[in-house]
Amino acid sequence: MIDLPQFADVTAAAQRLRGKVAATPVLGFPAFDARVGRRVLFKCENLQWGGAFKLRGAVNAVGLPRRAGLQAVATHSSGNHGAALARAARAAGLRCLVVVPVDASPVKLAAIESLGAELVRCEPGLAAREAALAEVLRRVDAEVVHPFDDARVIAGQGTAALEFLQAHPELDVLATPVGGGGLLSGTALAARGCGAHCRVVGVEPALADDTCRSFHGGVRVGVVGSPPTIADGLRGSVGERPYAILRAAVDDVITVDEAAIVRAMRVMLEDCKLLIEPSSAVPVAALLDGRLGAAGETVGVVISGGNVDLSQCPFLSARQ
Amino acid sequence: MIDLPQFADVTAAAQRLRGKVAATPVLGFPAFDARVGRRVLFKCENLQWGGAFKLRGAVNAVGLPRRAGLQAVATHSSGNHGAALARAARAAGLRCLVVVPVDASPVKLAAIESLGAELVRCEPGLAAREAALAEVLRRVDAEVVHPFDDARVIAGQGTAALEFLQAHPELDVLATPVGGGGLLSGTALAARGCGAHCRVVGVEPALADDTCRSFHGGVRVGVVGSPPTIADGLRGSVGERPYAILRAAVDDVITVDEAAIVRAMRVMLEDCKLLIEPSSAVPVAALLDGRLGAAGETVGVVISGGNVDLSQCPFLSARQ
Repeated sequence: MIDLPQFADVTAAAQRLRGKVAATPVLGFPAFDARVGRRVLFKCENLQWGGAFKLRGAVNAVGLPRRAGLQAVATHSSGNHGAALARAARAAGLRCLVVVPVDASPVKLAAIESLGAELVRCEPGLAAREAALAEVLRRVDAEVVHPFDDARVIAGQGTAALEFLQAHPELDVLATPVGGGGLLSGTALAARGCGAHCRVVGVEPALADDTCRSFHGGVRVGVVGSPPTIADGLRGSVGERPYAILRAAVDDVITVDEAAIVRAMRVMLEDCKLLIEPSSAVPVAALLDGRLGAAGETVGVVISGGNVDLSQCPFLSARQ
Repeated sequence: MIDLPQFADVTAAAQRLRGKVAATPVLGFPAFDARVGRRVLFKCENLQWGGAFKLRGAVNAVGLPRRAGLQAVATHSSGNHGAALARAARAAGLRCLVVVPVDASPVKLAAIESLGAELVRCEPGLAAREAALAEVLRRVDAEVVHPFDDARVIAGQGTAALEFLQAHPELDVLATPVGGGGLLSGTALAARGCGAHCRVVGVEPALADDTCRSFHGGVRVGVVGSPPTIADGLRGSVGERPYAILRAAVDDVITVDEAAIVRAMRVMLEDCKLLIEPSSAVPVAALLDGRLGAAGETVGVVISGGNVDLSQCPFLSARQ
């Protein structure tokens, strides 16, 4: 038995998050609509505080009633979740420990540290990360907040879709990227719970297509190693809880290739003036390929984040 | 005597624009606030349809009652106003002629043409532009819609500030860039008319400081030639109508240097995930220099547009 979040957990999370995360805008662009031959609305979590939807799940997990005396949270993450948990913990007055691989981007590590978290370095790879986290837990009385395989985190991530659908119940399709599956499963929970008629679709890089294979094959499978997709937030395998939810509540999972991801990132910057990270460009790539919704339909996309290291941007070079 | 718009023209424009322009979001970012030590809100006209506030003035001018039989509008502009007027004219079923200098960016000209406008090429320089426009008017029964020295355009531009102040009456300072002065004067009209307590400040590149000198000197002076500022939308001289309004209703006009403009553009992209054009970065530069508002105050900035040719971006190089 695993604990799965319910729709009531998403609505409770929405209450809990009020004033603690940004109510991000939903934006549409006639030029983009003309390009893809359908109406598209973007829920802009790249404009979320910290630049990613991850703050929602972290704030929800940290804001729930805690075991008496607990004064710390811990996780392993070198990316947006680590920074989000650090931010949420600081606001809640909790100590935060983040296990990070030694090869992680120094820029990202500095960001996590600047938010008051303590970094615990480990060798690369999931096994080393988990061992390091276990060691932290022997040392410190901390509660683990997993990046995606956590009912509280999934419920928090679902609040983006809840806001989106409350403002735009007319969506015919609602798409998100899928890596560990926290955002997609939270989105599906929100959509089914609020009675929206939209189809919920996950989009994945073809180079890291474990969720697509799991969804269509009926057995949860993982990626091997670290797939070389540019969508660095989507390189992991789908989690147990997200998988259980998406099998029941998601309509489809599809994949896109790397060139389409880079092109989508550039179109969003040039046409829509929005910097989005490669992971967020994955559903946009499916749109540009004409594979989300049909002509005349309204397609919603959750833009998951905008944290791009410009020196690593595939179509730009930083000059300084 | 010149015809000056009144506050009632701004509120009437707001009615006229409903559904014809985007109600752009107002965004704030705690990380940016921490950087400048005050609360900052951005009214994001870079997310406006067409990527700039200019659509507001153009739609207002085109939407007003027209002389019977009039079937065309004309202007001279190689930038955002030309594209905005083309878009507004197309929506209103009017023919649109745009006089453009032969050295204008081919990308921008293609954009104007793709919106259905007819391009009329002329030699560079204001005199050649005006002569070419006069020639157009001899040939075609068209009404001229000037980019900024036009009461209808000023009233339309003021609607951005009206939306901003209706949602955020708490602003202590409201700043815009200033080139021809259409946005700044419309903003001042809106702020004074709606009874807001905010100070209205225009910010200009030091290399094109004609408005600053005019405002403080009490005599309208112009720029000489085309000042070499990166803020290409602000290279012209302040117009007669905008100047009359801003002398009466603007609290201050200040200047920033080129390095500060480039830095501001980069900060907005990296911290706030928003692509803004150099002209829009001008008031942001003043903020980063600590020259807009005081600690504890709330500063509003109208981000005027996001139309950047990435191959010309000062801190990035396009790789393709």
